[in-house]
Amino acid sequence: MKMKKLLLLSTGGTIASVASNAGLVPKETGEELIKMLGKLPYDIKVRDILQLDSSNIQPEEWKFIAQNIYKYRNDYDGIVVSHGTDTMAYTASMLSFMLRNINIPVVLTGSQVPINVVLSDAHDNLRLAFAAAATCPPDIYLAFHNKVMLGCRSVKVRTTNFDAFESVNVPPVATVSSDGLVFNDENFQKKHDGAPTLNTKMNSHVSLVKLFPGFDPNLLFAMVDSGCRGIVIEAYGLGGMNFIRRNMVAAIGKLIRQGIPVVASSQCLYERSDLTKYEVGREALLEGAISARDMTSESAITKLMWALGQGMDINEVAKFFDTNVAGEVTLK
Amino acid sequence: MKMKKLLLLSTGGTIASVASNAGLVPKETGEELIKMLGKLPYDIKVRDILQLDSSNIQPEEWKFIAQNIYKYRNDYDGIVVSHGTDTMAYTASMLSFMLRNINIPVVLTGSQVPINVVLSDAHDNLRLAFAAAATCPPDIYLAFHNKVMLGCRSVKVRTTNFDAFESVNVPPVATVSSDGLVFNDENFQKKHDGAPTLNTKMNSHVSLVKLFPGFDPNLLFAMVDSGCRGIVIEAYGLGGMNFIRRNMVAAIGKLIRQGIPVVASSQCLYERSDLTKYEVGREALLEGAISARDMTSESAITKLMWALGQGMDINEVAKFFDTNVAGEVTLK
Repeated sequence: MKMKKLLLLSTGGTIASVASNAGLVPKETGEELIKMLGKLPYDIKVRDILQLDSSNIQPEEWKFIAQNIYKYRNDYDGIVVSHGTDTMAYTASMLSFMLRNINIPVVLTGSQVPINVVLSDAHDNLRLAFAAAATCPPDIYLAFHNKVMLGCRSVKVRTTNFDAFESVNVPPVATVSSDGLVFNDENFQKKHDGAPTLNTKMNSHVSLVKLFPGFDPNLLFAMVDSGCRGIVIEAYGLGGMNFIRRNMVAAIGKLIRQGIPVVASSQCLYERSDLTKYEVGREALLEGAISARDMTSESAITKLMWALGQGMDINEVAKFFDTNVAGEVTLK
Repeated sequence: MKMKKLLLLSTGGTIASVASNAGLVPKETGEELIKMLGKLPYDIKVRDILQLDSSNIQPEEWKFIAQNIYKYRNDYDGIVVSHGTDTMAYTASMLSFMLRNINIPVVLTGSQVPINVVLSDAHDNLRLAFAAAATCPPDIYLAFHNKVMLGCRSVKVRTTNFDAFESVNVPPVATVSSDGLVFNDENFQKKHDGAPTLNTKMNSHVSLVKLFPGFDPNLLFAMVDSGCRGIVIEAYGLGGMNFIRRNMVAAIGKLIRQGIPVVASSQCLYERSDLTKYEVGREALLEGAISARDMTSESAITKLMWALGQGMDINEVAKFFDTNVAGEVTLK
């Protein structure tokens, strides 16, 4: 059997970091990562496209990474993107929207400890990512600590533990056992409905607000006055918001009538939001709030940026959020 | 042995809700809750002090609940507060600051399903809360699904599962087994250092910002212009923030020089933030950002409100965040 041809796009992150007087700073090239790994049964090429701590990876880098993946999609059987962990779930989510119907597996990975440290998790994670890029069906994944997750469902939940990411509200696509990568069937029905497209248009003038008791709804208007074109609100529980005294619900209605889409998600990490269940949620729905259902905040904010970038008006954004684009949402 | 005298302060919430055309609305009195519970080995009195969905519980209600607890603290062996789940962790955190050195156990609880539903979790949670109020040492707790947690460490993480709350970064104070309430020793050394105090002064003109790639630092200034006096930023991972192009670190420095305290916490649910580890964190520290360490966002935002309410200046706020007031933070 011919060896699979895989591409490593390296972007920096902890995995490539070395100690400096200023703290850990990304320095190692992709070639150096591969050298540390030892022999693998793949034909691996490397391209260093960025050298950033992922705290500094922003919409401009998303576009650049997406362009690189799209450019090399026909030259390789799969692509691995090494990336800092801090914003990897955001990048994975946005790539899912920018690269619809991608024709090869694209697997993001990184590590909690630099690869040049003896007890690093980098070696395991990179080997897992290459194995996933060689065997998974085409899609955008995040591979970490023995789990391969759909990119748009992954969230970083731990700051130091090697088991840093979780697949939220759907099981991981596959997990490592002594049988190798074991796929989870029910999660594996994502259909592709056309040719791969690259669409990096987006509008990053959005805001992600975590509601707390005492939050002043006027801050929402201050954000819009300062250029914000769409808002995701991490509301309480199933999506509840206060309407007594500080009236979030009325504020949302006012924003929506101004054409600013407002998406309500839950600040609870797990499970869905459902605005229909309580009076406090229904009031918001009646005003036109869009429910994020069981999406992660990472997916909700990147989906909103992408939708606004396409020039969608508020009704089109609402309809787009009622569509499962990349496996990011469960529609009932 | 004399029966323990316990007080139930009822405030509404799902536990007391009934179906209506507008969705679930809180209606049942505390007396009705007790009736549904059946016989308990305690002498229980009831006071209905609020009848709200907890999405609508805000700083004004925190003060009112704290005043009621303080008022009845010498008449009972323990107090149970029935409360909606959505903002219960925020209320529990703020009560921990408002009622320092409280002399009796105060236990918040609620349920995911109304008590008038056959398969509700309300019965179990209320019985647990009363048992905790009868047996735990004085402190502010949140009791839910067989766990008694320190109030200022609890977070709602699930929107529908009965196991809705987690004790973040410390184990629960006690859990239910067939031996009854089993206390976790290491978590049980909270010392009280004086007489109970009621201090409800606070400033709710604060903001809780969840960072995402593309976030415009100018939104921070827009918030301050609109009256915000302190900001908690849920940064990435250990507390990293972007400083390329959109320069969060410079914006924070500017805010701090204006006397606005900026607290950096982590958007990862579990484990600590540690700004010293990466260049991206150190830069923020150098500008004067305050680390939330391993605090929950609920504790960080309520601690900031309380600190500002005392008239603390930015240096005093920083010092206050370096103090473990109620068990909310692990200092190294």
